Amino acid sequence: MTKENIMHPGIAVVAGGAGFIGSHLCRALLDRGHEVICVDNLQTARPSNLRALEGSPGFTFVHADVVRPLPPAVTERMAQITRVYNLACAASPPQYQADPEHTLLTSVVGTHHLLRLAEAAKARFLLTSTSEVYGDPEIHPQIEDYRGSVSCTGPRACYDEGKRAAETLAFDYARGGRAEVRVARLFNTYGPNMHPDDGRVVSNLLCQALSGAPITIYGDGSQTRSFCYVSDTVDGLVRLMESDIDGSEPVNLGNPVEITVNDLLARVRAIVGSDAAVVHRPLPVDDPRRRRPDIGRAKALLDWSPKVPVDTGLARTAAWFAEELGASLQSPAAQAA
Amino acid sequence: MTKENIMHPGIAVVAGGAGFIGSHLCRALLDRGHEVICVDNLQTARPSNLRALEGSPGFTFVHADVVRPLPPAVTERMAQITRVYNLACAASPPQYQADPEHTLLTSVVGTHHLLRLAEAAKARFLLTSTSEVYGDPEIHPQIEDYRGSVSCTGPRACYDEGKRAAETLAFDYARGGRAEVRVARLFNTYGPNMHPDDGRVVSNLLCQALSGAPITIYGDGSQTRSFCYVSDTVDGLVRLMESDIDGSEPVNLGNPVEITVNDLLARVRAIVGSDAAVVHRPLPVDDPRRRRPDIGRAKALLDWSPKVPVDTGLARTAAWFAEELGASLQSPAAQAA
Repeated sequence: MTKENIMHPGIAVVAGGAGFIGSHLCRALLDRGHEVICVDNLQTARPSNLRALEGSPGFTFVHADVVRPLPPAVTERMAQITRVYNLACAASPPQYQADPEHTLLTSVVGTHHLLRLAEAAKARFLLTSTSEVYGDPEIHPQIEDYRGSVSCTGPRACYDEGKRAAETLAFDYARGGRAEVRVARLFNTYGPNMHPDDGRVVSNLLCQALSGAPITIYGDGSQTRSFCYVSDTVDGLVRLMESDIDGSEPVNLGNPVEITVNDLLARVRAIVGSDAAVVHRPLPVDDPRRRRPDIGRAKALLDWSPKVPVDTGLARTAAWFAEELGASLQSPAAQAA
Repeated sequence: MTKENIMHPGIAVVAGGAGFIGSHLCRALLDRGHEVICVDNLQTARPSNLRALEGSPGFTFVHADVVRPLPPAVTERMAQITRVYNLACAASPPQYQADPEHTLLTSVVGTHHLLRLAEAAKARFLLTSTSEVYGDPEIHPQIEDYRGSVSCTGPRACYDEGKRAAETLAFDYARGGRAEVRVARLFNTYGPNMHPDDGRVVSNLLCQALSGAPITIYGDGSQTRSFCYVSDTVDGLVRLMESDIDGSEPVNLGNPVEITVNDLLARVRAIVGSDAAVVHRPLPVDDPRRRRPDIGRAKALLDWSPKVPVDTGLARTAAWFAEELGASLQSPAAQAA
């Protein structure tokens, strides 16, 4: 990035900017000198994420749903828009399955509207895609060229197939020379600003442990996940957007350290000091058994890899949830984090 | 089907009804006593397909693109609509890759508009999906539960991923109790009313052979396809629509007789009497090497299997193309077909 760009980087539109990752991204872009227009329908966003951003110089919130054409508050500033980040979509299964039609249209029609904006503004476009495009993968770790094992007929398809179709649109815009495009495939991300009720494993375990409730484990807990702390994810997104790669390929962003859900629980227990009982429940339909990114491409192209160890990130997240929930941590390590 | 239904089957909306398969389906539905509203944007349709239908009692043509909201000419007849068939989408690679954005939106947004119509009209909805949802398959023959090997980033993705996302929408409408849904996955279909320039192998080989032009074979011709004659495909579509299956699963419709492209060429040469030279060209990106339906589900649920042998179907198609192209056949067998 040239100094001139750093001094006058223009407006970054962040669709989904009031959400978990989006709110951290807005902050990072403001810190880099961008003006930020955050477009969000507040479907799954935490209002406090937004409150923490509002009032920041250069930050504008536009209450809109990307399924509909973008409002004048966005399009009237076309000439200054240099970056369009699309993070708009409910991302946890209970949330995205509550209105599957809207979920799929958010990814497909929303991406279409934002690509048209990028084309008209001659701005660069970044889609946050997902490891869900790999479905329940048959190869480990997952490389970007793996075509995935995705059910297009099941209850997760509204998210998975929506993101796959959004990628298709983005790459067709790139192939057609209509916009500079970047596609990140995000693996599980966690950290402050998550919604306590989003139904994902990190927030579930932390909130249950903090509140003293019985802890829910789906299946036997031997399924694995790879958890990336949100500051690492946001760093990867900005690096990808600002890189000069040709953008014709998706890039995995995630933490390649793979742990079982049972291992995650043990870490959460140690940090929170919980000895609550575990309740086992059936695995959801099409729940992936393993998920781990191969991040060779991100390392090579972006010099990116996650920096925050999982115990550090969990302790920070636990401390944040504790404050949110009004609970107190029993572990001095977490208190200090 | 009850007698009452046969006497008053109501209006069938056929999106894509001026296209190759759609025009045969419109005729079959008229023959069954339906009124038919054919909705088509005439992007890839042959005008003569439409001319052959216009003037038939009960047939109405509405010039509209399903990417946009359906016009009053359709929605005003809501109360009488009992069936919605969605065949709208360019289906041959040169055609669907010419405007990939429109192709993907045709499948996703078009299906959404037609599902909403079916929901509002309390009509049954049938999506013509495709064997392309299996991509370049790793199992043979393809069963419906196979998740496919599809590139969501390549030049075929606008069609393949569009259809996958359309299936997702349809099954979410079914799961949500919003519409009765049927999903057919069509394998290669051929027959009269194909577009001579659609770029598919049957029309390419027949038209080149009939015109005496050099015959183009992509790759070495050892790739296989399974060709279903259009009357069999249409019979399968109507059976599927009218069946009382629960509609929660897709159904393959295709001919399980698998032949190589070289074998197809030999049959075409025999029928047309051509000895034109063969020109080999590189295989297109992501071109599937093998494709063959397992039709066990269609047999079990619909008592359906193809009836027309490939040589019979090719002879009929050759005779039709000959008339279209003004060419004459040299084979008496084809003349008689």
